[in-house]
Amino acid sequence: MKEISEYQSLVLEQLELLEAQKRDLALYDPVSYILSLGGKRLRPVLTLLATDLFGGNLEDSYKSAIGIEMFHNFTLLHDDIMDDAPLRRGMQTVHEKWNINAAILSGDVLFVQAFVMVTSCKEKYLRAVLDLFNVTAIEVCEGQHLDMEFETREDVSIPEYIEMIKLKTSVLVGCALKLGAILADASKEDQENLYEFGVNLGIAFQIQDDILDVYGDAALFGKQVGGDILANKKTYLLIKALENASTEQSKSLNLWLNKSDYNSIEKVDAVTSIFTELKVKEQADKVMWEYYDKSINFLNKINLPKENIDYLLDFAKTLIERTK
Amino acid sequence: MKEISEYQSLVLEQLELLEAQKRDLALYDPVSYILSLGGKRLRPVLTLLATDLFGGNLEDSYKSAIGIEMFHNFTLLHDDIMDDAPLRRGMQTVHEKWNINAAILSGDVLFVQAFVMVTSCKEKYLRAVLDLFNVTAIEVCEGQHLDMEFETREDVSIPEYIEMIKLKTSVLVGCALKLGAILADASKEDQENLYEFGVNLGIAFQIQDDILDVYGDAALFGKQVGGDILANKKTYLLIKALENASTEQSKSLNLWLNKSDYNSIEKVDAVTSIFTELKVKEQADKVMWEYYDKSINFLNKINLPKENIDYLLDFAKTLIERTK
Repeated sequence: MKEISEYQSLVLEQLELLEAQKRDLALYDPVSYILSLGGKRLRPVLTLLATDLFGGNLEDSYKSAIGIEMFHNFTLLHDDIMDDAPLRRGMQTVHEKWNINAAILSGDVLFVQAFVMVTSCKEKYLRAVLDLFNVTAIEVCEGQHLDMEFETREDVSIPEYIEMIKLKTSVLVGCALKLGAILADASKEDQENLYEFGVNLGIAFQIQDDILDVYGDAALFGKQVGGDILANKKTYLLIKALENASTEQSKSLNLWLNKSDYNSIEKVDAVTSIFTELKVKEQADKVMWEYYDKSINFLNKINLPKENIDYLLDFAKTLIERTK
Repeated sequence: MKEISEYQSLVLEQLELLEAQKRDLALYDPVSYILSLGGKRLRPVLTLLATDLFGGNLEDSYKSAIGIEMFHNFTLLHDDIMDDAPLRRGMQTVHEKWNINAAILSGDVLFVQAFVMVTSCKEKYLRAVLDLFNVTAIEVCEGQHLDMEFETREDVSIPEYIEMIKLKTSVLVGCALKLGAILADASKEDQENLYEFGVNLGIAFQIQDDILDVYGDAALFGKQVGGDILANKKTYLLIKALENASTEQSKSLNLWLNKSDYNSIEKVDAVTSIFTELKVKEQADKVMWEYYDKSINFLNKINLPKENIDYLLDFAKTLIERTK
């Protein structure tokens, strides 16, 4: 097995190769742009890593791995339009730098390119790869739909929230891993366990993201603390707080949620205080660790040498302990 | 072989079956809506017809045919956003009835569903089907990109225009036919000739559309005469007129193109007069028939019984003679 940074380098190399072969048409400029914005390239790294884990040939996974990264970037491109986001990784979003039409259409063509790349595999794996990718792509769209729907709903429950983050982000983590396993001829059972490891780890990661937004160290976390609170985002913490609040706390929370004119620091402080009173961080932590443990249980079922299991265990730990 | 109307009925039956199995999520409401708006269902009919022509089993083509119709509707959904179109087949467009976000995301999920359906074929055809569909989907995006780009360009040439309509609409006609042929085990050569028949017929059809917009009988054509002229659309006629215009005619054309305040009937009459002076209809007719003849040449190369070739010939004639 290689270091994560080595897999990242391989992904970057493949992206550069692709960029060099790019068709000279303005349609593809936003595609190159968003793919160049960086990020940890977590998903394609997981595909390569999974192929390596099962003793497959990394070169057989390059294109599919890049396809997963392309699909992820396609979702970012269209999500940024829907969220009217001005920035992505500190740079202008595509619809800001170009326009909405360019962002829609470049997203569409990037989506097709993702299909092309993901399915650039040996014939014997094609049906399994295609089925996995199709199901995942549909689920990711459904997750984004639920996320948008929740913005205008007052009664989102915790199970609904978990289902949304699972569809919107976690299934793609599971898909990236399973894809690598399929391409390395892993058994169906190992593929499934690796998939569930990824999905549950993804859910744990997402809940932790909600916690860190409020309780994280801004410098380490790399985002503005309280961003979700300022955006009234229905996170695990807010949903749980609304569920458990006393009449008094509920009144205060809703006051802040409906205020259009406020001081940001005051709002973050006030809402955080209510969260702290209600111990929602502790509850979120508990559920986060439950999903983490669930993921490790699936990991331990995988039929691989102990050192490979330990490699994934280390990876999971590093991912979850990112701010400690 | 069946009547075209019988293939249409089969397509409608399959669409109803699909609607009955629909997942209960608001995301899919715009999908059901756009698929229910009707139309001639030309593309899926072509897939079924091609399978029948080569003696394949129609049932093996149902899903792929529906996938082609879904893909076509996905492009309509996103194109209508980009064109800011209020109506589609006389009904509200999806972004008008819902909103832009719903139209983007429902389009995306419809696109994945199209992939699922198109590739629901026997394993032995999967790679060929997937490669054809991937290439076509990329070309259709490129065609839409060129169409948008041409709106702001003054110097679009006839070859560029032909390339645009080929990518935006004709390759999907070729793809629908070739798909049906693949699924009926037609030879590679026959597949290719059928594809080229479709692409060239599609180009002829599109040029004729430009002619009919100006010179068609409104009642028979089913659209407002002069709609392209009012929209300053760079059609074959306008590009040719701008190319061949005298200084005087050019000045007059550009005056009308740049006028923001005008009487619609006056504008259509004035621009049509210049078209007529320059005989652009005759030139467009000539090129239209050249592409038609080209398509028939490819048709005649196909290794099929004469009655099957004649069936396609009749189909091509009916398509092109739609307003006579």
